[in-house]
Amino acid sequence: MNDTPNFSARHTGRLLGLGVGPGDPELITLKALRLLQEAPVVAYPVAKGRASNALGIVEGYLRPEQVRLPLVYPVTTEKLPPPFCYETALRDFYDDSCVAVARHLDAGRDVAAICEGDPLFYGSYMYLHDRLAGRYETIVVPGVCSVVACAAAASTPLMYRNQTLTVLSGVLPAEDLARHLARTEAAAIMKLGGNFPKVCGVLRELGMTGRAIYVERGTMARQRVLPLAEVDPASVPYFAMILVPGTRWVGEAA
Amino acid sequence: MNDTPNFSARHTGRLLGLGVGPGDPELITLKALRLLQEAPVVAYPVAKGRASNALGIVEGYLRPEQVRLPLVYPVTTEKLPPPFCYETALRDFYDDSCVAVARHLDAGRDVAAICEGDPLFYGSYMYLHDRLAGRYETIVVPGVCSVVACAAAASTPLMYRNQTLTVLSGVLPAEDLARHLARTEAAAIMKLGGNFPKVCGVLRELGMTGRAIYVERGTMARQRVLPLAEVDPASVPYFAMILVPGTRWVGEAA
Ligand SMILES: C[S@@+](CC[C@H](N)C(=O)[O-])C[C@H]1O[C@@H](n2cnc3c(N)ncnc32)[C@H](O)[C@@H]1O
Ligand SMILES: C[S@@+](CC[C@H](N)C(=O)[O-])C[C@H]1O[C@@H](n2cnc3c(N)ncnc32)[C@H](O)[C@@H]1O
Repeated sequence: MNDTPNFSARHTGRLLGLGVGPGDPELITLKALRLLQEAPVVAYPVAKGRASNALGIVEGYLRPEQVRLPLVYPVTTEKLPPPFCYETALRDFYDDSCVAVARHLDAGRDVAAICEGDPLFYGSYMYLHDRLAGRYETIVVPGVCSVVACAAAASTPLMYRNQTLTVLSGVLPAEDLARHLARTEAAAIMKLGGNFPKVCGVLRELGMTGRAIYVERGTMARQRVLPLAEVDPASVPYFAMILVPGTRWVGEAA
Repeated sequence: MNDTPNFSARHTGRLLGLGVGPGDPELITLKALRLLQEAPVVAYPVAKGRASNALGIVEGYLRPEQVRLPLVYPVTTEKLPPPFCYETALRDFYDDSCVAVARHLDAGRDVAAICEGDPLFYGSYMYLHDRLAGRYETIVVPGVCSVVACAAAASTPLMYRNQTLTVLSGVLPAEDLARHLARTEAAAIMKLGGNFPKVCGVLRELGMTGRAIYVERGTMARQRVLPLAEVDPASVPYFAMILVPGTRWVGEAA
């Protein structure tokens, strides 16, 4: 930002949806870092009373004079499909977040809305985007998503040649998970936490446990990579996923 | 690299599988850039007689003294499931590539094997990885994969809440594509080229054409984003995909 006072601002600011990568601060892109450091306002999602994961990733890159705009969301355990009241609370949260962000945009200030991983891949940023991208100039910078980061952490190729990769939410009912998993060569199952035992049961019934790899906090400080069978269900946090890599191609038709 | 002469090297070099992102050189991560610039040898895939896309992305970051190691692959049109002779040629290509890379590793030199997008997501690097990672110290740095890059280019969220994303190869037979597409909320169909008319036919039959977005050379210099119905099939290159984003979530249960 230059020193132009606010009252001379003729234009609205730009909405910048920035993927900051899966956890390791070095896995941000040059472009996201540049736009982040140029932005006068940095908006980030944070659960009430907790630390923001996205902010934690980029904190070391920010200058003190950049305005921090926390978007505080209602806490959820996504164990069960949430009841309607939670849905409403979430929608209100996004609506309120947009008002807070728009206030800066209207004053001519760019807002960097940071998002863990990639912003459009199950990202919290999507809900700001849908509400604001039609009204303000918007730039989305893709990021390293957690699925490929976890594959790198586990040192395993995801899918070969013409194999299909299915990305699933662990919140889905067991029947839906089973239906998808039975028909794909490779899979990533995200949003585990309390859904972990259910997901494990489905994989076991399909005989896929032996191929499944558990990755917790991929590329973060306390990363863990384990064969699925060795995981203690009680220890599974939100930042974890199960990968089922495609079968290795060694030279025959896929 | 330091100035230690080769004959004093006690250790083998490290294999570095580096994702360089989808095309825009600014979409490389800080980590991939650092390891790339430190590596004495840079290996890249290139089709006989053509320019290397991966090398083109990072060329501006390299120093003249870094050794370029082209891995020259047999040209394919992946229009039809390849005949066995092509499979064999491809396997030989990977075997030969590994010999060339291992020569440097054995001499104690790190080799940066660069890969467009992410290295383990349909990446050419996977075939080096499977052959060499067991024998040499290996680091894989994930990259921004083309799917999220194309979503950013099209300014569209990919999947909401608990929606499923299916990543498909356009090389698959129409029946297989139809079976997968009928059961997913969101999809990315890669490896188009000559497969484009077949893929369009499947989407049309499923009534999905209106939701489908075509992204060509996402984040590259000559990027094009079009509704699927407006694409001239004769113009579709290899670096193109079709996205079918999940239906927007506006506050009800997903
Ligand atoms: C709301 S989604 C956000 C995804 C993110 N936008 C991305 O591009 O990866 C949250 C889920 O992503 C997965 N996840 C995100 N970061 C992760 C990491 N570093 N290691 C393992 N899983 C991760 C977990 O499954 C988690 O439940
Ligand atoms: C062999 S795969 C490589 C994928 C790469 N490793 C990745 O992470 O995205 C090649 C396919 O990726 C897709 N692709 C790669 N880069 C692209 C881009 N910049 N724009 C559109 N599609 C792209 C195309 O569908 C292409 O046929």
